[in-house]
Parts: sequence; C-alpha cells; structure tokens
Amino acid sequence: MNLLQKNEVGVFALGGMGEIGKNTYAIEYQDEIVVIDAGIKFPEDELLGIDYVIPDYSYLVENKDKIKGLFITHGHEDHIGGVPFLLKQLNIPIYGGPLALGLIRNKLEEHHLLRTASLNPINEDSFFEFNHLKVSFYLTTHSIPEAYGVVVETPEGKIVHTGDFKFDFTPVGAPANIARMAALGDAGVLCLLSDSTNAEVPNFTISEREVGQNVEQIFRKCTGRIIFATFASNIYRVQQAIEAAVKFDRKIVIFGRSMENNIKIGTELGYIKVPPETFVEANKINSIPKHKLLILCTGSQGEPMAALSRISNGTHRQISIIPEDTVIFSSSPIPGNTRSVNRTINALYKAGADVIHGKLSNIHTSGHGSQEEQKLMLRLIKPKYFMPIHGEYRMQSLHGKLGVDCGVQPDNVFIHENGEVLALTRDSARTAGKIQSGDILVDGSGIGDIGNVVIKDRKMLSEDGLVIVVVSVDFETKQLLAGPDIISRGFVYMRESGHLIYDAQRRLKRVVIEKLNQDEPVEWHHIKNAIAEELSPYLYEKTERKPMILPMIMDVKQ
Amino acid sequence: MNLLQKNEVGVFALGGMGEIGKNTYAIEYQDEIVVIDAGIKFPEDELLGIDYVIPDYSYLVENKDKIKGLFITHGHEDHIGGVPFLLKQLNIPIYGGPLALGLIRNKLEEHHLLRTASLNPINEDSFFEFNHLKVSFYLTTHSIPEAYGVVVETPEGKIVHTGDFKFDFTPVGAPANIARMAALGDAGVLCLLSDSTNAEVPNFTISEREVGQNVEQIFRKCTGRIIFATFASNIYRVQQAIEAAVKFDRKIVIFGRSMENNIKIGTELGYIKVPPETFVEANKINSIPKHKLLILCTGSQGEPMAALSRISNGTHRQISIIPEDTVIFSSSPIPGNTRSVNRTINALYKAGADVIHGKLSNIHTSGHGSQEEQKLMLRLIKPKYFMPIHGEYRMQSLHGKLGVDCGVQPDNVFIHENGEVLALTRDSARTAGKIQSGDILVDGSGIGDIGNVVIKDRKMLSEDGLVIVVVSVDFETKQLLAGPDIISRGFVYMRESGHLIYDAQRRLKRVVIEKLNQDEPVEWHHIKNAIAEELSPYLYEKTERKPMILPMIMDVKQ
Repeated sequence: MNLLQKNEVGVFALGGMGEIGKNTYAIEYQDEIVVIDAGIKFPEDELLGIDYVIPDYSYLVENKDKIKGLFITHGHEDHIGGVPFLLKQLNIPIYGGPLALGLIRNKLEEHHLLRTASLNPINEDSFFEFNHLKVSFYLTTHSIPEAYGVVVETPEGKIVHTGDFKFDFTPVGAPANIARMAALGDAGVLCLLSDSTNAEVPNFTISEREVGQNVEQIFRKCTGRIIFATFASNIYRVQQAIEAAVKFDRKIVIFGRSMENNIKIGTELGYIKVPPETFVEANKINSIPKHKLLILCTGSQGEPMAALSRISNGTHRQISIIPEDTVIFSSSPIPGNTRSVNRTINALYKAGADVIHGKLSNIHTSGHGSQEEQKLMLRLIKPKYFMPIHGEYRMQSLHGKLGVDCGVQPDNVFIHENGEVLALTRDSARTAGKIQSGDILVDGSGIGDIGNVVIKDRKMLSEDGLVIVVVSVDFETKQLLAGPDIISRGFVYMRESGHLIYDAQRRLKRVVIEKLNQDEPVEWHHIKNAIAEELSPYLYEKTERKPMILPMIMDVKQ
Repeated sequence: MNLLQKNEVGVFALGGMGEIGKNTYAIEYQDEIVVIDAGIKFPEDELLGIDYVIPDYSYLVENKDKIKGLFITHGHEDHIGGVPFLLKQLNIPIYGGPLALGLIRNKLEEHHLLRTASLNPINEDSFFEFNHLKVSFYLTTHSIPEAYGVVVETPEGKIVHTGDFKFDFTPVGAPANIARMAALGDAGVLCLLSDSTNAEVPNFTISEREVGQNVEQIFRKCTGRIIFATFASNIYRVQQAIEAAVKFDRKIVIFGRSMENNIKIGTELGYIKVPPETFVEANKINSIPKHKLLILCTGSQGEPMAALSRISNGTHRQISIIPEDTVIFSSSPIPGNTRSVNRTINALYKAGADVIHGKLSNIHTSGHGSQEEQKLMLRLIKPKYFMPIHGEYRMQSLHGKLGVDCGVQPDNVFIHENGEVLALTRDSARTAGKIQSGDILVDGSGIGDIGNVVIKDRKMLSEDGLVIVVVSVDFETKQLLAGPDIISRGFVYMRESGHLIYDAQRRLKRVVIEKLNQDEPVEWHHIKNAIAEELSPYLYEKTERKPMILPMIMDVKQ
C-alpha cells in the first residue's frame, strides 16, 4: 500500500467503524493481506427499499493477489452476510468454525457460488503461517457458538481482534479462553481491536444461563401453548428453550426457514441436543394438547414476512392465536425495528395472547460485553495501541476512554473511520490516510446500481410525491399539439384537488405558448425550465408541498 | 346519540385509545357533551412527509350544538396540538390553566384564529355547572405545571379523567391533591379513565427533584460551556437547569423558538424565577467566558431543523462546538426518533463535545406514573368501572389487569378503541357500538387531502421508484407520432442502465404499434394496459424491482 512505509503494518476497516454492522477488517504487511469478517448492515430506513448494505470492496479487489484468506470470527449476519458479494468479486479461501461455515454454505448455495468456494474449518488450535503473517485464534463467549478472537502476528508485533465478545462466566456453551488471552497480554500485544457495541452500558452483561433460568420459570407457569421467538442464530437460546420444553414434556414445532436451518445445523454440530421424537411436523400441531406444545419461531424483530408477524395478524396458514397462548419475545428490538415489534406485540395482545417481552422480565441478554467486560479485555491483552471497533462514533470514543482508564497512553488510542489506515511499527503508530471505502446498497438483484441520486429521489418522492407535466410540441412549426397533461402521484387526492390541477394546466398552457412564440429559437430545456419555474412556486403556495416536478416534452413531427 | 338510551352516559375517545397521542375524549349525556383535550399525534414514518395526525372530528361537528366546551388537562402537544384544527371546524369555548392557554394562544395566532376564540382560564377551584353535567378539577403532578385531572359529574355518577399524571412526592412545582382524589373515591366514582402510558414499567417513576440534583452534579463538574437540551414544554426541567446556572454563576443563552416561547410564558406565570441579568442575547455569546455560560436549546429529539442538530453538524449561525463543551440530553428519545437522536449524539462527539444522555445517567424522568402509581390512583379513586386510556393496546390491557388487582370487577374493565362508546348508568355498563373516528393526516397546509391512496403511492415510490412512459398518438390515423419516451426516478442509475431503458423502449414501441394496428378501435386504456403488461414483468426480471409504472398517452390531432 502506497500509504505505508516498507516496515509498517497497515490496519483498517472497510466496515464496522462508526457504525453497527458490515464488519470487514484487514491487516496488511508488504505483500500480504489478512481479511477478518465480511458482514452486511441493515439499512436505517426500511422505507427506501434497500435490502442491505455491503462495503465497497474495491481495495481488496485491486489487491486480491495479496490476500491470504478471509478469517471469520463467528456466524452472525453482520460478520458473514457479505461473503457471497465479496466472493462474486474475488475468490479467496474462507476460514471459520464449522457453524459459521455451515451458515455461509447456505448463502453460497442461494447465490450459486458453492461449487467454486474454498471453505476451511478451523478450531482453537488452528494456526496459519504465511510469508510474514501468522494467524491464530482464541475462544470467546458470545450469543452464538464458536465465537473466536483472531491473533495476527506480524514482524512488528501481535495484533488482536476480539470479534464480538462478552465474558459469560456461566455460559451455555464452551467458556472463554481467558488463560490464552492473559498469555497473549503477558507476551506483549502491539495493538488491540476490541468490540465497542456496549461501551455505553455500565457494569456487566447478564449471563445466558440466567436467561435460561428465567425462561424456565415462565414455562413452569404456562397452562397453554408457548410461542417462543428469538434470533434463529442464537443457538444457545434456542437450546435452552428446547431443554425447557423437554423438561416440561412439551413437543416442539418450528416455524420459519432460518429457524429450521439453524436448528438443523446446530443439531448436526451437536450444539442442540434433543430426543428426536420431540420435534413434530407443523401439520400435526392441532393433534397435540396445548399445554404440551412449544412453537419455536422467527419474527422477534417484527419482520413483516416472518412467522410471528403472520401469526399475530392472523395470516399464518397453519396456526392462529387461541386462548391461554403465551408469546415470549426472547430478544430486544434493534433501534430501527422498535415500531414493527410494537405493532406485533399489540396485535398479539388483541388476538388474546399473553405476551412476555424484554421490557417486562429478564428473558434476553446482550451478546456483547458491557464496560466492565471491555475493561477486563483491556487488562488481559494489555495492548500498546488500542483501536475501538464495532460501534458508532460515540461508542468508540467512550471505549477509547475506557482504554485510557485501563493504562493505554492517550496518544495510543485511535478512533478511526472506515477506510482510515493505522500504520504500525513495534514502536510507532500513525494515521496514514484513507483508502477507498463506502456503502454499497443492495436492492433486489441489483448491487450498487442504487446510488445517492436514486435514494434522494426516493426520499423526495416519499415526502411530497411527484407531478408530471407532458406536452406534445412541433418544434418546426412551433405549435403546441397536445397538453399540458398533468398527473400526480403521492401528492394530493386528485378528487379533492381538481381545481388545483385545472388551474395549473391553464397557467402552464400560457407559459408554453409564450415560450413557443418567442422570437429566438426554442429548445426543450427552455420549455422544461419554464414549466418547473411556473409550477413549483404555485403548488407550494397552494399546498406548502414541494413535489418532484417532471416536465416531459414530446417532439412531434407532422 | 342514537347508540345511547335516554338515561345512559356515553364515554368515548376520538384519539388516545390504542395509541400514544392525539388525546381527545368526550362525555355525553342527553343534549350535552363535554370534550376533554384536543391533541395531535406525530406520524410513525417521518419519511412519508406527514407533519402530524389529528382525529376525525366529524362526530363533534355534527353535534356541535350539544358541546358545552373543550376542557384542557395540560399544555402538551398531544393534548392541545389539535385545538386550531378543531376550532376551524367548530368554535367552542376552551377552558384550561393559564399555561395551557398561553401555549394555545401561540398556536391560534399562527392560524389567525385568536380573534374569534374564547379562552377561559381555570384553577383547581373552578366549577362549571351545565344543565345536567358538572365539571371540576384536581391537581396532579406531571412534566409540566398545571396538570389537572377532570371530574365530570353526571346524573348517573361521577366520571374521573386523570389526564397525564405521576405521583411525584417531591415535585418541583405544586404537589398533587391526593386529599381531593381520596375524597372523590370515598364519595363514590362511577368510572375512571386513567393514563396507561407506563403500564409496562414496574415500580415508581423517579422524582423530578432527583433529576434536578443529578443535573446539578454535572454542572458542578463542567469546566467549559454547558449545552442543555430538553423538551421546551418541560418547564420544571428548564427551571432546574436555570437554578443550577444561577448557582454556579453561569449566564444563559436561549436557542430555539419553542424554548423562547415556553420560557417567556413560564416567566410571565411565575413558574420560571430568574434574576433578569442572567439571560444574555445570543450575539453576546462569545463575550462570555466558557465556564460562565449555559446554552438552553431545543432539539433533544434530534429534530433536523432544531438548534441542537444545527449545532451538531456545524450549520448553526451563532454557535459551533468548541473544546470542553458538554452537551446534556435531559430527555429520552421517542421510539420513532431513536435514529435521529443517535445521529445527533455521534455528530456532537465527532465535533469534540462531551455528551451526557439518558442512557448514561439519571438526567431524565418520565412524566407518567409507573405501575405502583397507577395502582395508587386506582386505590384512591376506587371506581366501579375502569377504562384505561392514553396507550397502545398492550399498555391498556396491562393497566386493565392492574385495575382488577386493585379491586375492579373483571367485567367492569373496558379496553376500548377510538370511537367505541361506553354506555353507563349508575348500575350498568355496556359497549354501545362505534361512532365515526379515524386519522386525519396533516401535510403542509393540507388537512385531510392526504389519504391512504396518496400514502400508499408515496410508500411504493419510496421503495422502488417509478418509470414513466409517454407516447404521442393520433387516434384518428392510428399513428404513433412520438415516443415511447421513458424516464425513471428512484428506480436505477440511468447511467448504469442505459441498455435496460433502450431495450424496454424497443419492446414498448412494438407493443404500441401492434395495438394501433389492431382492427377493433383502439382506446387510451388499451395502450396503457399493454405498456404496463409488457414493462412490469420485464423490469422485474431484470432488476427484481417493481417500480410504479405510469404510461401517458397524448392524443395529438394533426
């Protein structure tokens, strides 16, 4: 990289800095690049029709010969969702835990990329040695099994990337490898990249086990069916719901494709253990007494198409709410989803269900460590340089302060944006400039064919709608042959505003004819501008709205 | 009302049931109607360009001769925001505390309605006696002074409407009149309408005084300027910030029109007490040492146009962030605003300010009572019938359960929607059916000229954009004179998709000519349909998007 001196190690993100999601990090030394994670982000405004956001991979594509591999910390969408899109642009080997690889395999199948992909399972003892860079891993605790921290050893020193983590001392799965983190710290770490998600949350995140106990308490009380909604990928939570079902002798029906996928993979890998006869086909649901039934389903974020939303509004083919149903939201809404979750909860109450959600009892916990856990990580790793990752600016900057509280020199804390390169040597660090980075919007099958222009148009259209004005003109004879015709969409009720449109038509006809009769030659854009200049202020005066105005001039030769 | 028997009292809402906002309630007996509050609601999706939502006032308009007056519980937007729109449709006398009237006066001025309006100040001892109905009031505690509960005495019994309330035993202003509530309960109350907003929140809401102490703690530590943002209408909060400023010898500059208005009215009414020399003109701001300055401003909800947002993104004329600035958000984001608040907080951090917001310390409290306070109200009023108001369905239904816990007969709890009429006698209650009710959308100066059609169009436009196809046709000679011309907005980058549009043009030209050449007479809609039927599946196949397709046929006579 021309931004780096020969002996400098470059550390940068294409996604995950100053934002939650699309985590994609890279560590570069001379002719080698190690990529960590390839995530997606869900768009802020569902309304604008964007499915999701991926990073601009240009830099990686341009330097594909340097790339040694993509190393996956764990199997969440914001860490693996971008893999198919990255692989479409460059085929690099992928290294990750069997669970993450299983989830990635599903994605690659959908995108017809599986045949050519190289998927390589890792475990905590895996070790990869390239020309200059060496990559190894350590186990952490998170809301999905096989969550790894990544250690990249460079000639200048070790760089540790925590991935997502919390310190769950009573986890449902394997415990975090604190010993290995401590050993890393003792041996000396040049730079720590650590998860900032909960930097605003004081104290310690509650244990997954405690959530399990609360869930069990609720199961104990329920007299009717239990409908349990959570993130399908939270296999620990799913496993605990299943254990509670087995304990209280309930059969289990699964609704929602991602829930089925995750349970299938989780079972294959031995994370989900359940007597086979426990699961029942969805069509058998009515043959089972209601106090003997658990329904595991997707939709805890109020996704309109997910099982739970369809159950709540009575459009689900196989099941509808009946008396004594208890719906458990074992989740908390992501900011953008608060309203749709509320809608679902209200609909379920109206349908007669009893609803238990995060607000009311400890049936969910974060997968990310709070301030005390972030400090513990800092004290274990004892880095010389510290780079808060995974978070919006305010979380990064609070996390940076925690770093200073835990012994990092203030000048050694770097709050970076996506694309900003940290250049490191064993005894120096500097911000070396920026490489290309940005948001690529994915809408339907189109990748990157939606840009700010299109989005700005959609926003404008969504706020005041549009008004189209069409006229047919013979530019030779300077005759107005037809129009102006006006139609509007998303602007006002035509019914209520006939007079408005009619009046506008009259004014525009006058304007167009004036233009045509002027002495100097008329051109399209003269007429277009004249129409816009006449119509825009008129409509604003009458309605206080600024619809998009689209004049169209048809040149008709007679 | 034809839904009521002669001796029945009707109780219903036009807004506030099953929702947060647009609170508008009515109590009707024979030829008399008492209206309580006239609020607005802010729309769920900012994107669709709706400014706010008001109730459908049809029923009140049709029965205007029965209406004795509009009684205001307190001066918040969701209780007074609808007054100008109601008064445009029927001029009725308005009764409220001086503060509420002051805020209403500002609105009526903007709408040029002040001259004809009848505004009548009330206090806790006011008493209004009509033919059958008697109206009186009692003081409660809330996040604005002069918050009243309303008592409507009918020949069948007393109906108590709590307005918004909490039980703040150490309030900044006047304490709640618990004695009068207890006396009402002892004398016997037929029906209680009570605030459900915090029915999901256990325990007791923290006191405004405690918030003030936390604010003072922060002031004590600050070495630079303090920028304090809160709801302008929360005069107690503003007063406490001012007291802290005086205590630590800071001058005060005000930014934001609504903040100026509220401080002006609050000072006139004696709620805000401050040595006159404390306030300084905005243009003097740089002549004051930064540790001697408090800036009170609007924008705690991240409103793009408010002072704080403009300060955060550096577009404010008079002030920009400098080192040691501390910004205090003494507020919590309303669900729909979470993202814009986050954006503002991040921008302030980036600009170098230290930001303190609700998440981090107790510098905000709700104005609404939590479960224990709702129970206390139920125990004081001891109603025979109970109607939870002010809340989404799930809050109403939880509040209903609390009512039963506190001694209301389960059959005597009524969870109603807007428009549903509760018909009461001294010893009976029934749901008597529904009157007309609904949402009226206000966008710019248009009231109700935006309907579901328009909104659906805006949504569709915002998701996949639109494609316009224009052709000039001579229907007599069946000639295609010009076009098809295609333009799109919010659909795809034209640059990237020239081929797509070109190909579509070719296909449509063929289709149009086919139609024109058919033997049977051609009509507009034939061609329009043919265009849509050809284009829609083609575009979906190529882009997986379903833009709105607008074919326009110009009939050109040669």
